[in-house]
Amino acid sequence: MLYKKRLMTPGPTEVPPTVLAQGGQPIIHHRTPQFRKVLTEVVAGLKRIFNTENDTLVFPAAGTGGMESAIVNLCSPGDAILVAACGNFGNRWTNIAKAFGVESEHYEVDWGQAVDPKEIEKRLAANPKITAVFITLSETSTGVESDVQTIGAIVAKTSAVLVVDAISGMGAIPMKTDEWKVDVVVVGAQKGLMIPPGLAMVSISKKAWDLAKIAKLPKFYFSWEKSQKSMVAEALANTPYTPSVSLLMQLAESIRLIEEEGIEAIWERHAKMGAATRAAMEALGLKLFATGRPSNAVTSVRVPEGVDGGKLFKTVRDTYGITLAGGQGQVKGKIFRIGHLGYADDWDVISAVAAIERALLEQGYKVELGKGLAAAEKVLFG
Amino acid sequence: MLYKKRLMTPGPTEVPPTVLAQGGQPIIHHRTPQFRKVLTEVVAGLKRIFNTENDTLVFPAAGTGGMESAIVNLCSPGDAILVAACGNFGNRWTNIAKAFGVESEHYEVDWGQAVDPKEIEKRLAANPKITAVFITLSETSTGVESDVQTIGAIVAKTSAVLVVDAISGMGAIPMKTDEWKVDVVVVGAQKGLMIPPGLAMVSISKKAWDLAKIAKLPKFYFSWEKSQKSMVAEALANTPYTPSVSLLMQLAESIRLIEEEGIEAIWERHAKMGAATRAAMEALGLKLFATGRPSNAVTSVRVPEGVDGGKLFKTVRDTYGITLAGGQGQVKGKIFRIGHLGYADDWDVISAVAAIERALLEQGYKVELGKGLAAAEKVLFG
Repeated sequence: MLYKKRLMTPGPTEVPPTVLAQGGQPIIHHRTPQFRKVLTEVVAGLKRIFNTENDTLVFPAAGTGGMESAIVNLCSPGDAILVAACGNFGNRWTNIAKAFGVESEHYEVDWGQAVDPKEIEKRLAANPKITAVFITLSETSTGVESDVQTIGAIVAKTSAVLVVDAISGMGAIPMKTDEWKVDVVVVGAQKGLMIPPGLAMVSISKKAWDLAKIAKLPKFYFSWEKSQKSMVAEALANTPYTPSVSLLMQLAESIRLIEEEGIEAIWERHAKMGAATRAAMEALGLKLFATGRPSNAVTSVRVPEGVDGGKLFKTVRDTYGITLAGGQGQVKGKIFRIGHLGYADDWDVISAVAAIERALLEQGYKVELGKGLAAAEKVLFG
Repeated sequence: MLYKKRLMTPGPTEVPPTVLAQGGQPIIHHRTPQFRKVLTEVVAGLKRIFNTENDTLVFPAAGTGGMESAIVNLCSPGDAILVAACGNFGNRWTNIAKAFGVESEHYEVDWGQAVDPKEIEKRLAANPKITAVFITLSETSTGVESDVQTIGAIVAKTSAVLVVDAISGMGAIPMKTDEWKVDVVVVGAQKGLMIPPGLAMVSISKKAWDLAKIAKLPKFYFSWEKSQKSMVAEALANTPYTPSVSLLMQLAESIRLIEEEGIEAIWERHAKMGAATRAAMEALGLKLFATGRPSNAVTSVRVPEGVDGGKLFKTVRDTYGITLAGGQGQVKGKIFRIGHLGYADDWDVISAVAAIERALLEQGYKVELGKGLAAAEKVLFG
């Protein structure tokens, strides 16, 4: 039986055909008017999507490289920083800081829960030396969203800067950088922005630049200053070293698609897909893992008693063509995750629910075929 | 008049059509058997092309990221290191080291000259504390090749490791990593390997791993240990964070093409293209800039008296479709460079020579039309 390949992981996500086509275009040199036009368009487009007027830079790197850039450009040895983590990627902030000799105050909630803005407020009040707070917009490992707006209002009242890993949230769920007073936003390519992995993007507020000016951690490749000088200050749309030309050409096309649909319409689409997926899983008697603030970019579901999670994942992928994601770290084997972000629509959600119904049934788990589908359809059609 | 676009810069270089086509393929998830097969093939292929049995790692980054990885994985604060530079990219070693608080002993020759292996030997003898020597295989900014083989034999007798920036030489000119006792080789994607920019590759000898074990500079994103653990040690063909899937798929195809032609045949092709380009330029009465060991990857030529270098470059690009490169740093405006590496053949060289002849003539420079072409053809046909 033919089943088309569908990628429903929380990144990399499917790349739209016209964006793929850009990946097959002849390469252009980066010190040409032709490339500068691409880079200029990309940076302007990113600022609109990020909802920011702040400097926005692009690095040839995975999202983790963008995170490292925030640590090395903002911190000095001995700094007090606060990491508010609710999963694997939140913990990465602490791990990167530690690798650079900065011990973070690590506030971590039970996985599946969201960080509590009040706790951040309390900790900031208790330690006025904190220079930066690091959080995650959409925690890919658990499917939880942070309340960035509330946290933004809290941090803005202090001298600390707020740094948000929006790698897998940007372009999928609301992120109003300037309105929410977010100083630094880190974004990856292969999620809501719908291009292949390999680009990290960072936007930097005036408050963050002021901190960056006195930050003493060593940096070269990820230096914001070097990159800003080439890309922004000298108005040359240049880069300090060879940029990822093909990915940037793809990003230009992807930005065009995002703006054609409209960022608010995209948020709404994701909100519907998230709600439909959660309704479907609950209708099947499954338990959602994210009991805090579930993210509309990815839904995490507990593997029910009597079901082999690994086998479920493999059946859905290898028999039915749909790649989901398993659990990471402490929830490995205990949850599975359905990515519905980026280039995903109602029928992708419906297909994933149908495949999960079948795969559960094949393992003898009691499922009323179509019950999840009906629940999903009610949300999607409503 | 139609002139096809030809990219004859020393990187990015033209990407072959079947490699471009891979850039338009649907994205696959990186934690799948399908992707692991790609990564396994790529790493094995790179080792054959690098002529090494050493661990070989791939990072989502520009070549400069690969260079930074060598500094941060091999050095500790206060280390004595030796940089032997003959241009802009050689100087980059010193600049990266400096950014990380390591002051290099900086040996730099006049641009256009090659570094002298005897001088390296002398300096190593004078300072036995030197832990690492950094050089450049093919210095893109000047078109000079280093005598890596001789330097390798010298450094191997000491306790220092030899690190070679082979970013724009690998896959174009001879580089026998193990035979020449090179400990660390850094390679970029967009040169001899014929794929779009965005990947950095590093191979690491046992001697280099021993130094890396005691190196104290901070690192996370560029940690060799983390990458080696995922990619090699656990035999999972995994990566510590999302790899650049599309570029790796393109690299797999590019490796196939390289092995189809054969690496020694490729070296020979480049040797011929280099010799033909130099012969043509000299036949036109132009002076070569690289009077040391000219690299067969790129030819640098002095802009003659009475000729406007910027105008020459623009005429060749905008009128005749062939993108060359200008000069960088201290030789900006004084030289132009013809890249003939990667996916380049006899007729590309012939076309570039013809376009340069015409553009020179248009500026009133005395040229006997066809004289450069005849000289090039004699070498290519010989």
